[in-house]
Amino acid sequence: MQDLLIRNIRPMGAEAQDILIRAGRIAAIGKGLAAEGATIEDGAGAIAIPTLADTHTHLDKTTWGMPWYPGRKGGSLQDLIDNERNSRIPLGLDVHRQSMRHAIQLVENGTGHIRSHVDIDTDHGLSLLEGKLATRTALADAVDMQIVAFPQSGLMKRPGTYELMDEALAMGADVVGGLDPSSMDRDPKGSLDAIFRLAEKHGKPIDIHLHEYGELGAFTLEEIIARTHALGMQGLVGVSHCFCLGMPDPLRVGPLMEEVAKADIRIFTTGHPSAEVPSLQDMRAAGIKVGLGCDGIRDTWGPWGQPDMLHRARIVGMKNRMRRDDELELLLDAASRGGVEAMGLEAPGLVPGAPGDLTLVAGETLAHAVVEEAPRPLVVKRGRVVARAGRIALPGVVMP
Amino acid sequence: MQDLLIRNIRPMGAEAQDILIRAGRIAAIGKGLAAEGATIEDGAGAIAIPTLADTHTHLDKTTWGMPWYPGRKGGSLQDLIDNERNSRIPLGLDVHRQSMRHAIQLVENGTGHIRSHVDIDTDHGLSLLEGKLATRTALADAVDMQIVAFPQSGLMKRPGTYELMDEALAMGADVVGGLDPSSMDRDPKGSLDAIFRLAEKHGKPIDIHLHEYGELGAFTLEEIIARTHALGMQGLVGVSHCFCLGMPDPLRVGPLMEEVAKADIRIFTTGHPSAEVPSLQDMRAAGIKVGLGCDGIRDTWGPWGQPDMLHRARIVGMKNRMRRDDELELLLDAASRGGVEAMGLEAPGLVPGAPGDLTLVAGETLAHAVVEEAPRPLVVKRGRVVARAGRIALPGVVMP
Ligand SMILES: [Zn+2]
Ligand SMILES: [Zn+2]
Repeated sequence: MQDLLIRNIRPMGAEAQDILIRAGRIAAIGKGLAAEGATIEDGAGAIAIPTLADTHTHLDKTTWGMPWYPGRKGGSLQDLIDNERNSRIPLGLDVHRQSMRHAIQLVENGTGHIRSHVDIDTDHGLSLLEGKLATRTALADAVDMQIVAFPQSGLMKRPGTYELMDEALAMGADVVGGLDPSSMDRDPKGSLDAIFRLAEKHGKPIDIHLHEYGELGAFTLEEIIARTHALGMQGLVGVSHCFCLGMPDPLRVGPLMEEVAKADIRIFTTGHPSAEVPSLQDMRAAGIKVGLGCDGIRDTWGPWGQPDMLHRARIVGMKNRMRRDDELELLLDAASRGGVEAMGLEAPGLVPGAPGDLTLVAGETLAHAVVEEAPRPLVVKRGRVVARAGRIALPGVVMP
Repeated sequence: MQDLLIRNIRPMGAEAQDILIRAGRIAAIGKGLAAEGATIEDGAGAIAIPTLADTHTHLDKTTWGMPWYPGRKGGSLQDLIDNERNSRIPLGLDVHRQSMRHAIQLVENGTGHIRSHVDIDTDHGLSLLEGKLATRTALADAVDMQIVAFPQSGLMKRPGTYELMDEALAMGADVVGGLDPSSMDRDPKGSLDAIFRLAEKHGKPIDIHLHEYGELGAFTLEEIIARTHALGMQGLVGVSHCFCLGMPDPLRVGPLMEEVAKADIRIFTTGHPSAEVPSLQDMRAAGIKVGLGCDGIRDTWGPWGQPDMLHRARIVGMKNRMRRDDELELLLDAASRGGVEAMGLEAPGLVPGAPGDLTLVAGETLAHAVVEEAPRPLVVKRGRVVARAGRIALPGVVMP
């Protein structure tokens, strides 16, 4: 592949200079760089940051681009889960097409890494996973995708799901998912033992949806921490949402966060405005590696969201009452480099030797870039331009 | 003024028809309307709704279009207030220019009514009000604006403020403002007596910022309710934010909401993601008239927000955990017709005889229109086109 020389960009808001990417990695950053035969791009003085990371989403769920879905329901988590499982086929929700629409827009908006959960249930078997694996292959040059095998309808309560999870992991799913071992599976010991057994068998990391609030969530989290230590899985376990760390009692939450940090458990948060979410600032101060995610976008659960990690960062920032520039810089780090690190990948930032993944952003400063609603001028993956002015620009890839 | 005939629109999502506006009011709604000499617009099948209402904002505060402001602070409400008051002059924050930028964008995004608070303090005297009055005059054909004289730095604690408030109301401010009579003014009786005295003297309504949480806020709210009844001001008193109605205890909040409804006190909410806000659904169910507002946009307090009431409606909807189409329709009503009603104005919706204020919106249904991020195709005020495809289109009005 040709070298890529991007002239006149401001790495992390610094003064204007050039970046040279060679063989997929940043080879040099400095003023007046030259490279024989390189493709040249003009950055027009825009700020460059590492690509964004959507560390928690569900590419198999969106109705984006389909007729408006009027059938959303209220009710319990179980009602929402059942409504979705029963709606997919009548709706004609084609997972490959929909996940392409979703993921391409994430790329257009500067995303270079996605961790996406995919429902594994006894109604759909592995068909949803197959659709998503096809999308991963189609977009392999544009985005690195981790797929979590996710027992959305329950692991213990629907017999046959464990075996499907086992197959999914053999087929190419990268991460073992789980869902509310206490409140949904009603058997925290059985559920967590099964999840960790699958992880051990396949040598793969874990990412558990934990919506459980308050003391119930804290109890389940303590069980996750204990198993992480017992199996030597520090750094390989993630918990998504983890609303229990948003409990109002700092005397309970502080020590729990310390335990999470000690087990090197990663937390993935969406900053949900209507939930008690863990404080991003407190988690980072405790040394926890944190990723941000858009979660589902306009799916059968809810109408909200945009496939854009800066849109999500703004929600997380408002939710965490961030105001100052240094807070917005922390937020942007969590939405990009920090999220990649939380996914267990190399994330040194924009330095020589780092992966050649970057996006240009509008704005005068890093803080300004977080709040400015504007297309990303240029998105680069492993030294190749993949989107330009907010539109995919990768040969052979078209929005379905 | 010429009649305006808009063909091929879907009023409130109904089937396509025409709307005729004559002498500033809706004259007819139906299929195949004709009107000799009328200006004709093609609605292209878009949904029409009454114009949106930003019932709580601060047009004198935004830094929009100025260099990025890096000086935002954390800390107490008092710290934020002091930082703002001390920043305006060094920053060169020209209120007329900035309020024009802010208000024009609201109009471009379909807003026909604005209630804007303007700081009245002993450092700036009435200069901020003067800038905003000039903006109201400049945009009189595009938007109806209520100006609240707002003692941002305290009414009781800064001597001379009462007299300035008195002057501001004589000069053209429409509404008597107030700020946290207990927690900021430290004298709820004195502060509320002063506010209601100004209202009585000038024959004007009241709109009090009440950030006070929990029982302190409930105490102050009870005092506001008592004075509303004692002075016969039912329907003329508003409370902005009213976070105390977001207390988690339904046994306390339910009866309080009933009392608010009985006094016909209007509530203006921004759905702040990091605060305990009152439930929009519960307030409406209790019969309270509610308006939504964007509050400050990218000001010295915080970097967040967009000058767009649909953007704000989405935040309020997420905060209130709305999912279903009927919930989104309620939300859209609160962002438009309901907000105008809460401001004390005529708001019958799109019916013959109603004010000729409407905006077209993108989307297949009303619910879809709430979540779709797209420019408003056409905005009409009193039968005159004021914005088109998200851009101001009023002769003589340019974005400064
Ligand atoms: Zn999820
Ligand atoms: Zn305010």
